[in-house]
Amino acid sequence: MMRMATIETGLYRIPLPVTLSDSTHGRIAAFELITCRIRDADGAEGVGYTYTVGRNGGAVADILSREISELVEGREADDTEALWHDVWWGLHYGGRGGPTVLALSAFDIALWDLKARRAELPLFRLLGGFDDHVPCYAGGIDLDLSVDDLLKQTDGNLAKGFRAIKMKVGRPDLKSDVARVSAMREHLGDGFPLMADANMKWTVEEAIRAARALQPFDLTWLEEPITPDDIAGHVRIMQAGGVPIAAGENLRSLWEFKNYIAAGAVSYPEPDVTNCGGVSAFMKIARLAEAFNLPVTSHGAHDITVHLLAACPNRSYLEAHGFGLDKYIEHPLVLEDGKAVAPRRAGHGINFDWKGLAKLSA
Amino acid sequence: MMRMATIETGLYRIPLPVTLSDSTHGRIAAFELITCRIRDADGAEGVGYTYTVGRNGGAVADILSREISELVEGREADDTEALWHDVWWGLHYGGRGGPTVLALSAFDIALWDLKARRAELPLFRLLGGFDDHVPCYAGGIDLDLSVDDLLKQTDGNLAKGFRAIKMKVGRPDLKSDVARVSAMREHLGDGFPLMADANMKWTVEEAIRAARALQPFDLTWLEEPITPDDIAGHVRIMQAGGVPIAAGENLRSLWEFKNYIAAGAVSYPEPDVTNCGGVSAFMKIARLAEAFNLPVTSHGAHDITVHLLAACPNRSYLEAHGFGLDKYIEHPLVLEDGKAVAPRRAGHGINFDWKGLAKLSA
Ligand SMILES: [Mg+2]
Ligand SMILES: [Mg+2]
Repeated sequence: MMRMATIETGLYRIPLPVTLSDSTHGRIAAFELITCRIRDADGAEGVGYTYTVGRNGGAVADILSREISELVEGREADDTEALWHDVWWGLHYGGRGGPTVLALSAFDIALWDLKARRAELPLFRLLGGFDDHVPCYAGGIDLDLSVDDLLKQTDGNLAKGFRAIKMKVGRPDLKSDVARVSAMREHLGDGFPLMADANMKWTVEEAIRAARALQPFDLTWLEEPITPDDIAGHVRIMQAGGVPIAAGENLRSLWEFKNYIAAGAVSYPEPDVTNCGGVSAFMKIARLAEAFNLPVTSHGAHDITVHLLAACPNRSYLEAHGFGLDKYIEHPLVLEDGKAVAPRRAGHGINFDWKGLAKLSA
Repeated sequence: MMRMATIETGLYRIPLPVTLSDSTHGRIAAFELITCRIRDADGAEGVGYTYTVGRNGGAVADILSREISELVEGREADDTEALWHDVWWGLHYGGRGGPTVLALSAFDIALWDLKARRAELPLFRLLGGFDDHVPCYAGGIDLDLSVDDLLKQTDGNLAKGFRAIKMKVGRPDLKSDVARVSAMREHLGDGFPLMADANMKWTVEEAIRAARALQPFDLTWLEEPITPDDIAGHVRIMQAGGVPIAAGENLRSLWEFKNYIAAGAVSYPEPDVTNCGGVSAFMKIARLAEAFNLPVTSHGAHDITVHLLAACPNRSYLEAHGFGLDKYIEHPLVLEDGKAVAPRRAGHGINFDWKGLAKLSA
């Protein structure tokens, strides 16, 4: 146990190497990184972060620096359950979702990093090691690429060592989606794990039609076919579409995941540790999925999440995300035989290039 | 139709005349007011606001000034459906709840005020007038008052013209809640509309026990017995408690209300126009309740909400809130025979004392 001494918030706007696009978020030229550095009375440090696709980051930083810092002043850093609970309820009115949960996530990640560093354990071991080699896929943000460029990007991912790939769907016409998935399946061969992500583009009936049209291409899952606010719609797609469904990057609590999982609305729950409530919430969601005999996958923040899935018997694929954060991290993710390797360094093992980041301060 | 020219955000910290308390939010010494003033190319102005019980306000203001202003620049102010949709989806990642929705609510209220002012109509008529005299109750924040002080506060509310009253419950022991509700019922007499608000204090079984213990006192409703994240729990309390249930001040979208209403989890949906998504969302929630044969009540912001309920055939009671905002408003709410009267001035008819507020700028 050790009291928190300082909490430091950073807000950075990080340009992407190329402008990305998907079916819902439009063109994404930069993402926002919001960091949380906790130092305890001994001087030990834990680091957490969250990110957005370009908006709400100022609000997240404001909540970290103005609200959370004050709410938890002088508290024991190891009491993650008490701290999570007190921040959730201290910010409940006007919180309970949105930027408030992203801020809480970054804070909670920093606490877990600090706890693991003090214990001199890699985070995955602190959480209960299962397998430090986690199946991993490359998450492409490639909706607007031509088929040629899509296959070229795919060859690049294969060359980097990926042995599973996710592509975007949700183009204006279903025919074009089918042609692209078909080209990818042919290029990758039978049995190669291929996922498709619609980023909430469709209505329920459009999603069922798309799922059926994509059945021949043996997708591992179809992701976010519709808006996250329609659980009953997800159940219908699960029952009528004939393709496994992944969802969760836009759910903001254990309880939202519980509603999906208990209703049979999702095959692959997909929490993002930076927006579901941090390590504390992610692990509860993963264990809830285990109780319901569901594999758990992940969204974003692969450098932290590799530890979390390495502690889950029901782990499915880790998403390796396309954002260019690796440039600002000392030890980017390592792949072996298509699997991401949870590092043995203490904590989550990420060291940011703070000087490089400082130039992007927003 | 008229293009928006400027959007101005204000953040104020307003001390309460007396420190308030309820079962969940602890002691509240001040609330935050966040304002949104939209001026169109003609110089006409619409004003919206939202509030918090003390935290998240900085984030709300940041979203209004940094994100929404940019997202809607130069757009037609009358296109409330398009603007709401574009802000919801423009801020969806990291938004979809929390401070983002409070900011959107303030923005949407300002748009409706502007539309009504330009049309030279009171807002309730623009929305479809039903009855400009809206049943109204005094919402007491009185959990820590002695029984004597509670009855004294009640006499004050009766003297102000209120003919319905809500009190807090959720004290450490149920016996004390029962004694207070019993004293209030005796004081007010049979048939006087009395509600009780637990502010999410209980577990499901505690709530059922409390509801049963409170049955003899003929409550109009029992409010927020448990956390808003347990819809199935609400259904059990509805079925086993024997007292009507109100809930909604902590739900942040039409879709959250739909989940409650479709599940039979609530008797009195209780949206707050300043946190459910503004006038646009409040009216959809009210119409959804009407479709399900449910009365609709309200939380907070009585000065705006009186217009909304005045346009609803299924309106139940308007909450007249205990926060001291009236001091900064030119024409506070008028009561006639226990009913709140929707003003005939154009728009919602609120004029803030901007000079007085400026001293409380945060
Ligand atoms: Mg996705
Ligand atoms: Mg209430």
